[in-house]
Formats: sequence, C-alpha cells, structure tokens
Amino acid sequence: MKAPIAVFDSGIGGLTVVGALRRELPGESVVYLGDTARVPYGGKSQKTIERYSEEIARLLVSEGAKMVVVACNTASALALDHLRRILPVPVEGVIEPGVQAALAATRTGHVAVIGTKATIGSGAYERGLRAARPDIRVTAIACPLLVPLIEEGMFDDEVTDAVLRRYLSPLHGTDVDAIVLGCTHYPLLAPAIKRALGPDIALVDSAANCATVVASHLSAQGMLAPAGAGSLALGFTDPPARFLEVAGRVLGLATAPTELKVVPPLGV
Amino acid sequence: MKAPIAVFDSGIGGLTVVGALRRELPGESVVYLGDTARVPYGGKSQKTIERYSEEIARLLVSEGAKMVVVACNTASALALDHLRRILPVPVEGVIEPGVQAALAATRTGHVAVIGTKATIGSGAYERGLRAARPDIRVTAIACPLLVPLIEEGMFDDEVTDAVLRRYLSPLHGTDVDAIVLGCTHYPLLAPAIKRALGPDIALVDSAANCATVVASHLSAQGMLAPAGAGSLALGFTDPPARFLEVAGRVLGLATAPTELKVVPPLGV
Repeated sequence: MKAPIAVFDSGIGGLTVVGALRRELPGESVVYLGDTARVPYGGKSQKTIERYSEEIARLLVSEGAKMVVVACNTASALALDHLRRILPVPVEGVIEPGVQAALAATRTGHVAVIGTKATIGSGAYERGLRAARPDIRVTAIACPLLVPLIEEGMFDDEVTDAVLRRYLSPLHGTDVDAIVLGCTHYPLLAPAIKRALGPDIALVDSAANCATVVASHLSAQGMLAPAGAGSLALGFTDPPARFLEVAGRVLGLATAPTELKVVPPLGV
Repeated sequence: MKAPIAVFDSGIGGLTVVGALRRELPGESVVYLGDTARVPYGGKSQKTIERYSEEIARLLVSEGAKMVVVACNTASALALDHLRRILPVPVEGVIEPGVQAALAATRTGHVAVIGTKATIGSGAYERGLRAARPDIRVTAIACPLLVPLIEEGMFDDEVTDAVLRRYLSPLHGTDVDAIVLGCTHYPLLAPAIKRALGPDIALVDSAANCATVVASHLSAQGMLAPAGAGSLALGFTDPPARFLEVAGRVLGLATAPTELKVVPPLGV
C-alpha cells in the first residue's frame, strides 16, 4: 500500500474531512481512525485531549502514515502544537483552514464561530482570525448539545431547531455574515443552521479547505503519492453506532473496509 | 482510614448513590471515582464497558476498597457479571435494587424503564423484573439525549420537556404506574418527568435501595465499619466540569475533597 495520509477524529465527524480529501486527492491512500471508545473530546480537559491525541497519532505514525490530519476541531484547538512538537511527520489541523475560509467569506468583517466547549474555550479560532486580520470581529458560541443531537440523526427536527435558535440568538440583529462550523459534525446540520439564520449567511466548513491545504503541503514537499488509484480504510476504537451508517451514506463512504483498533496507552 | 466502600460511575451521576450511602451509613468511609475522561459509557460496546469497569474497579481494590458499588446503570447492566467473576471483594450494582424498588411500587404490574442505549439494549432490567415476577409487563425506552441535557444543567427547560414528551409518548394511555429511572443522572430530572407523565406515576430511583442493599450485605458479612465518623473522598479521571458543582449542591456533597486520578489501563 502507498504510505497513507492518516486522518483522526474523536469519533465519526472527521469523515467529512475524509470525503473532501478523497475528492481532492483521489490517488492517495487514506486511513481514518475514530476514537469512538473515548468520544466525545469536546467537554474534556486540555491534558486529557493532548494525551488521547498523542496516543492515536503515535499509533498512526507507527503504521506508516506520511502525514497526520487532525480532523477534529477540539483536538486541533487543544493538541495541535503538542503533536507538531512530538511527531516526526507533518501535522495539519482544521482550525487554520477554517480561519482562511472564514476570512475569504466575510465582507462585513464580523464572523461567528460555533464549536464544542473545549474548542470555544481554547480561543483558537479567535487567535487565528485576529492574527490574520487584526480588525476582525468574532462572536464565538459553545454549542455542547449539537453533537449528541447529530449523533441521534436529528438533522431535521424541531428539537434541534429549538436548540439552534437558542444557541444562535446572539447573532440576530448583528452584521455577522459568515459562521464557522467549528466541529466536524456540524456540516450535517447545515440545512438546520440555514433555517435558524436565514439564507444570507455563509456557512464556513473547514473540510474542503483542509483538504486543499493538505494537497498543497504534500505537493510542496514532494510527498504526493505515485500515480494509480488510492484507497480508504476506516478504523474505530469502539464499534461505531448507527451514526456511521448515516454519515457514510451522506458522504458516500459507506463501502470502505472497517477495522476495530486498540490504541496503546502512553505509560502511566 | 477505615477500609472504604468504593463507588464508581462513568461520570458524575453516581453521586446520587453516594448521597444515599452517606445517609444510610454515616459511619462508613466512601471513596468515589468518576471516569470523566471516558464518559459517557452509555453509547459504547459491552467489551469496552467491561474493560473500563475492570480498570476502574481494580484500581479501587488496589487502594483498599472492601466492597465495590457500581453506581452506573450502564456498567451494572453490562459489566457486573464480569466484575463479580474477577474481583476479590463483593460487588453491588444498581439494577437489582432498582428492580426490587419497581416491584414494590407497581400495582398494575406494568413498569416502564428509561436508560441509556447500552442499558436498554442489554435487557438487564427486563430480565431482572421477569425473573422476580414472570407476569410483569415492561416498556423499556432508550433516552440518549437526557444525559447531555442534564450535564448542561437544563433540568427545568422547555427543550428538555419537549425531548421528554417525545421519549415518553409511548407511555400515554397505558396502565404503566411506575417508571424506573435507569440512569444515575435521571433523578435530577424528576420534576421534569413528573411534568411529562403527571403526578400519579411512581418514580423509581435505584440510589436509596442500592444503599439499603449495601448496608444489608455489609451487616450480614460482619463488614460494617467500626464506630466513629465516616469520610468521603471524590476522585475523577478528568477534571469534572461545572456539572460537579451543580450535582454537589443538589446532593449536599460539595465540600468533599476531590482528587484527579490516572487509571492504569489493562495490558493491550
């Protein structure tokens, strides 16, 4: 097998990034590892998120990954610097691609960011946005119930609509014109978010931009795969629930082979 | 310190059992360990739940516990037999105490059980109820969104009420007269469940009955603590979020010392 691009997430949501990578780089082999035995990361501490991310990433590197893509906003926000320090391969996350996509989308210069408690609490998106454009205005909102609602498949549901209306109410009457979907699950709620905010706001999703950044990096470093078809393999640390089926169907990834993996823990 | 009764849960909910134990057995030392680094268990596989429960329980026994109380319905439903096989101390769960409390509460012989996907999927409550009373009728409903709503502190909230109305709608027009709160978080929703089902249904909570069963067991085995005040210590595998404060306040446990613990994993 070609040395793969390894993609990991706390669960299933990172498959949105896998879908974008497969479209952008069809000749690459991609392995995905979802840490479903310890999902969710979004309410946990930085130390725990760093440890989990390191365990997963070291396993992927030991299996031959040429690059690690952190397809989880929480892990990107809290563990990317740590992973870049310790891993011998390039590491890309989803925050910086999301930042760039948001800057391209806004005309008013007022951007909203939604994500897990850990992602929003980290301030990673604000820092990235302000570093690139110091006069940017950012309204960041933690939305801890969205992942459970999505994992229940409640994409088009009045309960989800009510929860979204509440979370997004601070945006009404503002000049926010772009909202960063700062969690890989959230693209599955795009229609519901449009219902809550109206058609004029731009929904910014890191997945496509992340794939573009990965492609540029591999190309610049001469690391692109040799010609020929790529492949996809999915691994999980706990058998994934019915949500995998839903997500796989949405993303057209349903037919990839799936494996159960045990992640060796760091010494305790 | 007196050899403690060790209580564990996937997170914070098991503190309801700790509250009952402290009231029933004020002379005992109690140590609590919440596996907040890997919470929730309720959507994970039996194998993973058994492994996590074993790791936590072995740590508690190595620290001198004279008895292990599994104050988590999911772990009780899926890992109790495993723990009883491998541990050198008595193990009590919350399913059988809940079953006994339900049988005492129902007059119609039709009981509802609500819990996580894993708990309901295991069929543990139905088996326990039918073993004790073969003609019992049971309506079991998985309610996966309740734990996230509770952990957000949304005890009295129209979103929670809407979710409960939907989950509990199969009970309307039936002769169900008792509902087992088959997750240690759920007692915090007791007023909301009363709003959804009306005042005539009995809410059955394992916590008090579990404490009674533990007390009987210790007494029968001559294992009660010597005279003198007991103590309480709380441990977590990840720093617990603001929900601990809420739960501690509700349960009057807020002043116990808290420790962060690392659970040694089983060999992989």
